[in-house]
Amino acid sequence: MSADQTAYQALLARFSRILRLSDMQALLEWDSAVTMPSGAADSRNEVLGEAERLIHELLTAPDLPDLLDAAAAEEADDQTDDALRRSNLHHMRRQVLRARAVPADVQERFQAARLRCETVWRQARAEDDFPTLAPFLAEVVAATRERAQALAQMLDCSPYDALLDGFEPGGRRQRIDALFAELKGFLPDLLQGAVKRQQGQARSSLPKVAVEAQRALSRDLMADMGFDFAHGRLDESLHPFTGGMPGDVRITARFDPANVLEGILAVLHETGHALLEQNRPPAWRAQSAGRMDSMVLHESQSLLFEKQVGRNRHFAGYLAARLRDHAGGGWSGQRLHALMTRVSPGPIRVEADEVSYPLHILLRYELEQALLCGDLQVRDLPGAWAEGMKASLGIVPETDRDGCMQDIHWMYGLFGYFPTYVLGAMAAAQIFKAAEDALGPLDGALAGGDLSGLLDWLVRSMYARPQPADTDEMMMALTGAPLSAAAYRDHLLGRYGGDV
Amino acid sequence: MSADQTAYQALLARFSRILRLSDMQALLEWDSAVTMPSGAADSRNEVLGEAERLIHELLTAPDLPDLLDAAAAEEADDQTDDALRRSNLHHMRRQVLRARAVPADVQERFQAARLRCETVWRQARAEDDFPTLAPFLAEVVAATRERAQALAQMLDCSPYDALLDGFEPGGRRQRIDALFAELKGFLPDLLQGAVKRQQGQARSSLPKVAVEAQRALSRDLMADMGFDFAHGRLDESLHPFTGGMPGDVRITARFDPANVLEGILAVLHETGHALLEQNRPPAWRAQSAGRMDSMVLHESQSLLFEKQVGRNRHFAGYLAARLRDHAGGGWSGQRLHALMTRVSPGPIRVEADEVSYPLHILLRYELEQALLCGDLQVRDLPGAWAEGMKASLGIVPETDRDGCMQDIHWMYGLFGYFPTYVLGAMAAAQIFKAAEDALGPLDGALAGGDLSGLLDWLVRSMYARPQPADTDEMMMALTGAPLSAAAYRDHLLGRYGGDV
Repeated sequence: MSADQTAYQALLARFSRILRLSDMQALLEWDSAVTMPSGAADSRNEVLGEAERLIHELLTAPDLPDLLDAAAAEEADDQTDDALRRSNLHHMRRQVLRARAVPADVQERFQAARLRCETVWRQARAEDDFPTLAPFLAEVVAATRERAQALAQMLDCSPYDALLDGFEPGGRRQRIDALFAELKGFLPDLLQGAVKRQQGQARSSLPKVAVEAQRALSRDLMADMGFDFAHGRLDESLHPFTGGMPGDVRITARFDPANVLEGILAVLHETGHALLEQNRPPAWRAQSAGRMDSMVLHESQSLLFEKQVGRNRHFAGYLAARLRDHAGGGWSGQRLHALMTRVSPGPIRVEADEVSYPLHILLRYELEQALLCGDLQVRDLPGAWAEGMKASLGIVPETDRDGCMQDIHWMYGLFGYFPTYVLGAMAAAQIFKAAEDALGPLDGALAGGDLSGLLDWLVRSMYARPQPADTDEMMMALTGAPLSAAAYRDHLLGRYGGDV
Repeated sequence: MSADQTAYQALLARFSRILRLSDMQALLEWDSAVTMPSGAADSRNEVLGEAERLIHELLTAPDLPDLLDAAAAEEADDQTDDALRRSNLHHMRRQVLRARAVPADVQERFQAARLRCETVWRQARAEDDFPTLAPFLAEVVAATRERAQALAQMLDCSPYDALLDGFEPGGRRQRIDALFAELKGFLPDLLQGAVKRQQGQARSSLPKVAVEAQRALSRDLMADMGFDFAHGRLDESLHPFTGGMPGDVRITARFDPANVLEGILAVLHETGHALLEQNRPPAWRAQSAGRMDSMVLHESQSLLFEKQVGRNRHFAGYLAARLRDHAGGGWSGQRLHALMTRVSPGPIRVEADEVSYPLHILLRYELEQALLCGDLQVRDLPGAWAEGMKASLGIVPETDRDGCMQDIHWMYGLFGYFPTYVLGAMAAAQIFKAAEDALGPLDGALAGGDLSGLLDWLVRSMYARPQPADTDEMMMALTGAPLSAAAYRDHLLGRYGGDV
């Protein structure tokens, strides 16, 4: 810290370095998934590991805690926006605390266990061999527990809350329990009713659409949604994701000729993530306040564009027209909408319809807590899974591959991640409702594929704000109320409850 | 440095970090040229600038000089290869000295001047406006002079030698003067003779070859040459280059339907660079000894595959067969060879034939020294250029755009770079001769496109060696003699001197 610099300015300089290193990492991770030659994984991991170590060293620099205290005690100068400064200080401190919390040996055990387990899982899943996987997953659970305890001590919260905080800053189990309890109150009936009602409907299957046509269609959809191709890309990878860095936001999709809807919905989803990133103020590019660490808020945007917009009855007409442009044939909005809102419980989370999906998550949320606190042993996971699926979705997966081995999250030590998907869906419904409250009904705009008014409102109300301390701070500012299940319930009942 | 580590081991650890950061940089520079969206240059430069600063900080860490001295005084343990250790110590010291030599303010002035000049140059070149460019280039010359003096003081050599050393470790002007004097002795006559002789030959033009066919042809050529696509890629960019990192070597080409030969020769050239990189021992990936900082030695490999192999009379038969595979038509080896060995002096360096090319370089070599020592003022450059071109190639460019403004090198402060192109061509001829001395004549293998014997010899004799202290150390080991003009002269006289 030089003499003419405030502690706050010194911190910003440190963190611009940290964030730019993370940006390098993110660009290289995009490359790993999209362009890296097949044999380069080892050399890539060496390079990414080095970036990880450098970031950790910068975050755990011995003078950072004092600098954070000094900055908190400083008076802000007149030029700095107060909310921006508060957000920066909050998230810089949060990152420093999390990095300092975990002793090197604990972090190494965690890292080693999850790398081993992920490798074993890829093979074991292919062979549907849970017994081989079990001891490796048990190692990850043990290492996660150890890491969670270290984090909890530093953050002064429960171990599970400390894990949650990694994906949802300030997230608390008690709050999530209450929100999820509301879902349990109406979801099972809604599911049964929707399935019953749809039994009478004629089924139609999807015509094939060539990959090349899906690519062109996707670029058109993205452009219509406001994606800026001068500051972003669309590519293809095994699993769709949003990557890159502020100013260079890259989404990926996967196109299956036999399932054009899957490709389109993934593009809408990732474009939602991208619109948030592309519309953050460029001046905050290398500041913590300019990021959006909350997976709930991030997912609220991808899900808003995938579910509220993408599966909307009126928007389906626009989608059908775009499909006719690129794939010819007799696509109709009505038929597309029926396909996109078909309710049909199955064993696989990522293939689940909008009503079944939260039930998949509720099960995982309960099981991951039971695993971590020791109430459930890893060897008993398949049984608990089957029981839980039977109780909530009325089905039992035929294999562990289609059951407790389907997701990478636990294998890779990502405990506390699953609930953000449903919290994000709740936030999406609440934010979309707030947008319609502010702008009036959007049906007409959606029917014409005109999302500019919605995007404009999102930019002004959400994307231009510094990252909040927690999701409720943003929801209050955006919607006038903390996150609740009400709008999500109304949305699901409205679309699947028999009134439509 | 921990207690159980030798100084040498501590240095290796430091440099693995430095080299991995450079690898990140290199991968992102590849991305900038190949995949980056058009509007992302600013955010990319922020990220690359951060990597640059980190590398500089690591190289100028205050304890490094002592650590280097301690390692030099240490006894090597029995497990370490002596040549490897010597190479590592030599190049680690060299990099540290170069980084410490230049004061921060001098480096900043240099950096600012070259970024400004490059930007002005792009516009001024398009408009053929040298007067606008001149003051900016003069700034670069002044900043380069200042930087060269700082480097010279640290390296204990002349300022120009200090610049040379940046592209050719240990390179010395005195030595280059002697080598280039030999070229001046025979090149003008050879050029005149070749032009005269070819006047009688029938000219044929190239049929068009679609870009898609050139891509597939290039991949086939690369595979035949031994390029490993599991550890590398072929892409397209405005200017062909070899990038990426050890274990992930990426070349680019540019395909013009009207000029398939240009595309092919660029692919052969870059594949030569890539074969060297792909065949370095993987265990040295993050060690200085595993790199090849000498542009002369690197260029010796690209030129060996582009000129010795690519323009070889027998290899042309194989190339013609491959062209027939991908582009149909009546390609003949004889015709291809005639086109690839056509001698026709023109103003543009990168379009020059094999005989004119070194004369382009000799002119730049003289002019850049005159600019740096003040014998030539920037405003007088166009006149000196015209005079030099007239004297050596017998032509005068019609515009400055096709004259002294054609290359980026000086604009970007790359003084001392040009001579490495011709030294590389000399080394290529000398190394190819050594290969034929060892393996017997390669005409038959080249006619069949079988480069495996040659590559195998190069791997054993050159690629598997630690990076040498200077080019002559490698040339002695490879060819039994220091770099000389003899083989290059024989090669040029043999191919263009009227005996063929």
